[in-house]
Amino acid sequence: MITRKGILFVISGPSGVGKGTVRSAVLPQVDDMQISISATTRPPREGEIDGQDYFFTTPARFQQMIDNGELLEWASVYGNLYGTPQDFVTAMLSQGNDVLLEIDIQGALQVKKKMPAGVFIFISPPTVEELSRRLCGRGNDSEQSIQIRLGACQEEMSHMKYYDYVVVNDRIEDAVEKVRSIITAERCKRKNLNLE
Amino acid sequence: MITRKGILFVISGPSGVGKGTVRSAVLPQVDDMQISISATTRPPREGEIDGQDYFFTTPARFQQMIDNGELLEWASVYGNLYGTPQDFVTAMLSQGNDVLLEIDIQGALQVKKKMPAGVFIFISPPTVEELSRRLCGRGNDSEQSIQIRLGACQEEMSHMKYYDYVVVNDRIEDAVEKVRSIITAERCKRKNLNLE
Repeated sequence: MITRKGILFVISGPSGVGKGTVRSAVLPQVDDMQISISATTRPPREGEIDGQDYFFTTPARFQQMIDNGELLEWASVYGNLYGTPQDFVTAMLSQGNDVLLEIDIQGALQVKKKMPAGVFIFISPPTVEELSRRLCGRGNDSEQSIQIRLGACQEEMSHMKYYDYVVVNDRIEDAVEKVRSIITAERCKRKNLNLE
Repeated sequence: MITRKGILFVISGPSGVGKGTVRSAVLPQVDDMQISISATTRPPREGEIDGQDYFFTTPARFQQMIDNGELLEWASVYGNLYGTPQDFVTAMLSQGNDVLLEIDIQGALQVKKKMPAGVFIFISPPTVEELSRRLCGRGNDSEQSIQIRLGACQEEMSHMKYYDYVVVNDRIEDAVEKVRSIITAERCKRKNLNLE
């Protein structure tokens, strides 16, 4: 019986590319995959459970986690802090579980510095222009704001070179199938098996 | 539009493991995959077409190919010579086509020396004992001949360390799905894409 090492999978890509949709569609199709649980300073919403939806944390404790290097990555969103506790991820991996993390490009680059052995998957639009069209699909944006977003997207696309895989999200079913295949393949990699 | 480099996939493993069955089942499930065509000194059988089933070759010409290093690998089987012409494979790859080669372990190790960038997939029995049982399934082999085959199989298994992927052929459908996933995943690898 061959056992495996735990693998960290990071799904990332430009905003608006549909990486959250890909993750949600992939999850029910793969066994033995843990979702990373984020820490946040945002107060719990109705029905949210600490340690399941998020690790709810005070700003002081969050700052301590930053200072102690306990977070794989963190960011401030609308005044609340969000981050990925490294402890939780490494505990899962050391038990031979795989962990899936869906995160923006800046976060993924932070994670890569701390866990370079992770599998980094870049979800790409068919073209930068196509992403711009999706983001600006409502048609009531000024030419200037379209140009600003297009520039931001080109900047994000330039980080593709740090990733192991590139999955073009043209048809969502195809993108999901590709990510599922990447997970299956990585699990067959000899270096991820515990041989002898 | 992102284009890809051609990839050489090598399916290999101990004799009796079912690698030919895996290959035949995978092929109809993947697009854009060329089969490597072998050269042989064996005379054509009824209906076999030169350049399609095999490149039929004289012993003198085959020897010349060996001497010139034109073969990725070669072997003698029941007095006939069989080999894989490198030209054909590299021409396919340079056109952006993928090539699939199913071959025994000795052949795969020869190919790896010449084309280390290939993707080497080891089809493994669930256990060495299980492979021995499959090979000796008829139950009328002497204890000694079983021991000899078991030893040969253990020797073959020791080469697993040279492969990129290990696919356990427990249920054939699962093994086929894993090989198909490996092909899909490798095609998404950033290093196999022609970016900028």
